[in-house]
Amino acid sequence: MALTIGVDVGGTKVAAGVVDDRGEILEQVRRPTPSTNPKETAEVIAEVVNLLKGKFEDVKAVGLGSAGFVDETRSTVLFAPNLAWRDEPIKQKVEEQVGLPVVVENDANATAWGEARFGAGRGEDFIVLIALGTGIGCGIIINGELYRGRFGIGAEAGHYRVVPDGRRCGCGNRGCWEQYASGNALVHEARDLARVSPALAGRLLELGDGSPEGISGPEVTQAAREGDSAALECFRTIAQWTGQGLADMAAILDPGAFIIGGGLSDAGDLLLDPVRTAFAEALTGRGHRPQADIRIAELGSNAGVVGAADLARI
Amino acid sequence: MALTIGVDVGGTKVAAGVVDDRGEILEQVRRPTPSTNPKETAEVIAEVVNLLKGKFEDVKAVGLGSAGFVDETRSTVLFAPNLAWRDEPIKQKVEEQVGLPVVVENDANATAWGEARFGAGRGEDFIVLIALGTGIGCGIIINGELYRGRFGIGAEAGHYRVVPDGRRCGCGNRGCWEQYASGNALVHEARDLARVSPALAGRLLELGDGSPEGISGPEVTQAAREGDSAALECFRTIAQWTGQGLADMAAILDPGAFIIGGGLSDAGDLLLDPVRTAFAEALTGRGHRPQADIRIAELGSNAGVVGAADLARI
Amino acid sequence: MALTIGVDVGGTKVAAGVVDDRGEILEQVRRPTPSTNPKETAEVIAEVVNLLKGKFEDVKAVGLGSAGFVDETRSTVLFAPNLAWRDEPIKQKVEEQVGLPVVVENDANATAWGEARFGAGRGEDFIVLIALGTGIGCGIIINGELYRGRFGIGAEAGHYRVVPDGRRCGCGNRGCWEQYASGNALVHEARDLARVSPALAGRLLELGDGSPEGISGPEVTQAAREGDSAALECFRTIAQWTGQGLADMAAILDPGAFIIGGGLSDAGDLLLDPVRTAFAEALTGRGHRPQADIRIAELGSNAGVVGAADLARI
Amino acid sequence: MALTIGVDVGGTKVAAGVVDDRGEILEQVRRPTPSTNPKETAEVIAEVVNLLKGKFEDVKAVGLGSAGFVDETRSTVLFAPNLAWRDEPIKQKVEEQVGLPVVVENDANATAWGEARFGAGRGEDFIVLIALGTGIGCGIIINGELYRGRFGIGAEAGHYRVVPDGRRCGCGNRGCWEQYASGNALVHEARDLARVSPALAGRLLELGDGSPEGISGPEVTQAAREGDSAALECFRTIAQWTGQGLADMAAILDPGAFIIGGGLSDAGDLLLDPVRTAFAEALTGRGHRPQADIRIAELGSNAGVVGAADLARI
Repeated sequence: MALTIGVDVGGTKVAAGVVDDRGEILEQVRRPTPSTNPKETAEVIAEVVNLLKGKFEDVKAVGLGSAGFVDETRSTVLFAPNLAWRDEPIKQKVEEQVGLPVVVENDANATAWGEARFGAGRGEDFIVLIALGTGIGCGIIINGELYRGRFGIGAEAGHYRVVPDGRRCGCGNRGCWEQYASGNALVHEARDLARVSPALAGRLLELGDGSPEGISGPEVTQAAREGDSAALECFRTIAQWTGQGLADMAAILDPGAFIIGGGLSDAGDLLLDPVRTAFAEALTGRGHRPQADIRIAELGSNAGVVGAADLARI
Repeated sequence: MALTIGVDVGGTKVAAGVVDDRGEILEQVRRPTPSTNPKETAEVIAEVVNLLKGKFEDVKAVGLGSAGFVDETRSTVLFAPNLAWRDEPIKQKVEEQVGLPVVVENDANATAWGEARFGAGRGEDFIVLIALGTGIGCGIIINGELYRGRFGIGAEAGHYRVVPDGRRCGCGNRGCWEQYASGNALVHEARDLARVSPALAGRLLELGDGSPEGISGPEVTQAAREGDSAALECFRTIAQWTGQGLADMAAILDPGAFIIGGGLSDAGDLLLDPVRTAFAEALTGRGHRPQADIRIAELGSNAGVVGAADLARI
Repeated sequence: MALTIGVDVGGTKVAAGVVDDRGEILEQVRRPTPSTNPKETAEVIAEVVNLLKGKFEDVKAVGLGSAGFVDETRSTVLFAPNLAWRDEPIKQKVEEQVGLPVVVENDANATAWGEARFGAGRGEDFIVLIALGTGIGCGIIINGELYRGRFGIGAEAGHYRVVPDGRRCGCGNRGCWEQYASGNALVHEARDLARVSPALAGRLLELGDGSPEGISGPEVTQAAREGDSAALECFRTIAQWTGQGLADMAAILDPGAFIIGGGLSDAGDLLLDPVRTAFAEALTGRGHRPQADIRIAELGSNAGVVGAADLARI
Repeated sequence: MALTIGVDVGGTKVAAGVVDDRGEILEQVRRPTPSTNPKETAEVIAEVVNLLKGKFEDVKAVGLGSAGFVDETRSTVLFAPNLAWRDEPIKQKVEEQVGLPVVVENDANATAWGEARFGAGRGEDFIVLIALGTGIGCGIIINGELYRGRFGIGAEAGHYRVVPDGRRCGCGNRGCWEQYASGNALVHEARDLARVSPALAGRLLELGDGSPEGISGPEVTQAAREGDSAALECFRTIAQWTGQGLADMAAILDPGAFIIGGGLSDAGDLLLDPVRTAFAEALTGRGHRPQADIRIAELGSNAGVVGAADLARI
């Protein structure tokens, strides 16, 4: 049985695992990301790969899922703000230290591939995955294959513009989708509400230890589960923007399924139900076309490791 | 040499041509569309096909480019408001009358295919075509193949939302891209200007026989070519929305080239230059990624016939 | 009993009347406005005044309500696009020809004064009148006196901005209130609807002789009275913007009453009911403050003549 | 020489002073506001008044400037969220404890009156003051008199809507002016910038001790004074919204002067220059009308005490 190693390189942690051809993780390991030092990051990656490789005989290749833009040859990370990487030849660097072939992929693409092969996307060949976390990660599966675009930088849907002159985005533009539909957007919404209407946001403030800044995603989800009207309003707002965005994606891509992952997807039906409603109300040509299914991701935070490993296999 | 017939079925006319495998039209014919009667439209299509078929021995197949949503089996038009078609089994109807295999395709898809194979898209495998006319027609080429989506309804980019609560669109939504970036949007802009600032729009009104309603696309283009500042402002506004939209498409699809067709593309550099500028200023990650080329279409109004014919061949 | 003459000078007609101190019009006369020739306009005004003056012995003064900006000495029209007047010394010109003292006032101010003294504003000292017609005319009564501002140009509320980068306005800006809440805005809304959704707007098109351009205000009002859902939607949209604007005025001015005049006010409760609802939902501090009353004007198209005449008296 | 006492009651402090008829403060005193307890707040007010009264023989009256809505009889605070007052009969309560006549006024109104009589508004009878701090305080002087509106709640201009569906406001609405043009808005802008573009906002973060939350108004002003481009961009954004808002006020009120006060006005020309530019570009009818002057307030944080004291005199 051929094994591969998948590595998920994010701004805060490096997660790696040995994965078999059914998508099962046989062993895994994590390290904090030394994010301000590009050289050290490559070394940490090599370290975890060598550690895992030492435990299994038949590891054949390594798949690396990285934040940022990956070039079309799947070798170099062109730009990854959170990792301090610019034109980083990470494939070569890691190959030299681990003695295995390495393929590099955008992390959301790896996540999408993991869900497509072994998670919520099984049996569907046209998938758009969006991971709602700090921002929006996006991966697209077309005809059963990962879509990378002409230059390797496709599927950055978090940065299409949804509001002219809207909220400032880290990419330098204003009004990007991820500023309105993401885990951070939910927290932004809840803190705003707590700041201007403390009375209305009483339960949120209580869970947040009294200050707007103390409120983060899990608090909003918990309050919403308890039926708190302020938290539910925050969810409705984010779901509205999410559903609208999925309808926009459907106008362009007409996929068979959308998969919602990322930290925000832990909210489950609390998120899914209003997203489906908003999508159905916003889809162009509704009533005259089949509609994509909208599902919650199944692999959780492991999807990136599993997907990266599997991409190294093919 | 194998020949095929391409038919372009629009709201006002049916155009058909015999096309060879180099994309050359050997002979063509046009008829007005009997658009309120679905049955008659099929008969007109069959009539022009039979007429052309009678003149060439080796016609092997027919490609039909039609406005509206085409189902995934490329047989039935699900919904085409301008043709009065709902669930119209047009493949079967035409095949019965012409005795040749027929494939049906969305008209903008056929246009995109024509340009990709024989026009401005030659040599590029990842293309987004937008045809700026009454609305926005859109076709997408991925890996050298026409992209149709899971249900056959992909590439309706004219209906992704660019302005929340924006201008009303014929699709029933508000704020769709085609309400801001299309030939009609240009005319809308010019008439608005003439209505509220007749002094400023003097040349436009002159060309439009004195009334705002008299101004149409060719008048705006002519005035802009003369250097009229009001007309140039209208072009800049439409180019801004077009370039922004292409940047949004690039965020999602990362194509190698955009091709701009449709009636508005007759304006050439008058449109192309400000679109390129707007695109370059709006692209997410600009400076850290290769940029798609933006080109004017080359086949003009024949692209749909040529593309449909070629799609029948493969 | 002292009489005065009121003259209402608009872009299309000059209306004049002899008015007594109870606001009764004893006799009136109308002439078309020779709007492209400033000199002739003054002559037409003098002609109608002299005509009326000849019939009544004790006419003491003339009040002139004019479109445009009137200077602080109430003598000169600084700017009136529809009358081709720039720095027109109309007080002096008319006085020379009629031998009576003349005061000049903005037409909406005159209308507001008429309603305040003899119409819907009786008994209220803090009033904002808005006249919904081609645009929004506005007049403000504070402490029982007409408010003119420091330079005579106050109460142009139709040109505060309600939508950033919104609809183009004749004043040269974008997003002015009158582009969203006026008789013209209602017609704009109805034509737009008819253009993009002819099926939905069937009754409007029928009344408009088949084309969107054939639909004007009275048609929309008639269809709405019949219960036509498309026309009612147009009214709701305009009422929403009107009520929001009144709430904005209330935040700044806190009047005791709003009076809605202009051609659109003929719709009566069809307009008034949804305006009141929108106002109540948009008012800042609602629930903690007394609310202004919202009323339909009572004097109709005579308010300008009556108000101008009365302003000449004081 | 008659003296009066002015008291400025804010959410965090109670400031009081003995003021003569030339607006000079002879002696002053401050106390923290016991803001959660309405009863105690009245007692603290009485305490500082009695303290000052004991030092001067001829104090004749007390003027109280309070946050919130003050009723038309100038006796009761209807609603002041930051003071926990609802229908608080503060005039009567304080009069009972100090034995002097008391008049109550909205704090921004008192500030406007102070500036009008003794500060930047001397010699001008039509003034709009806006105090840019936590929100926007507003006071209006018409014909040399303080404007209070029909019900005493006029001049709450911070709550007219500038962006449909815009930023949430503490008043319960969305898109209020003060969410875009105020000291808090400046800080909001700077923190947002630091959050999404830390590299660009390096100097701001440095001054803010490394975290976006550490940045407050004085840091942004300091960085802007040093020429930091990120801070200057934040100022330009706020100045744009401020100038637009003043243009909107001018459309409605046509004042002779605008006075900008509040904490943000400490930035002086850094704020004033771009506000003037934005105003001049946004004013309706620009070029055909005299323009209001825009000035920085002169009395600083004393304006409220001075104004309240003077209002007690008349």
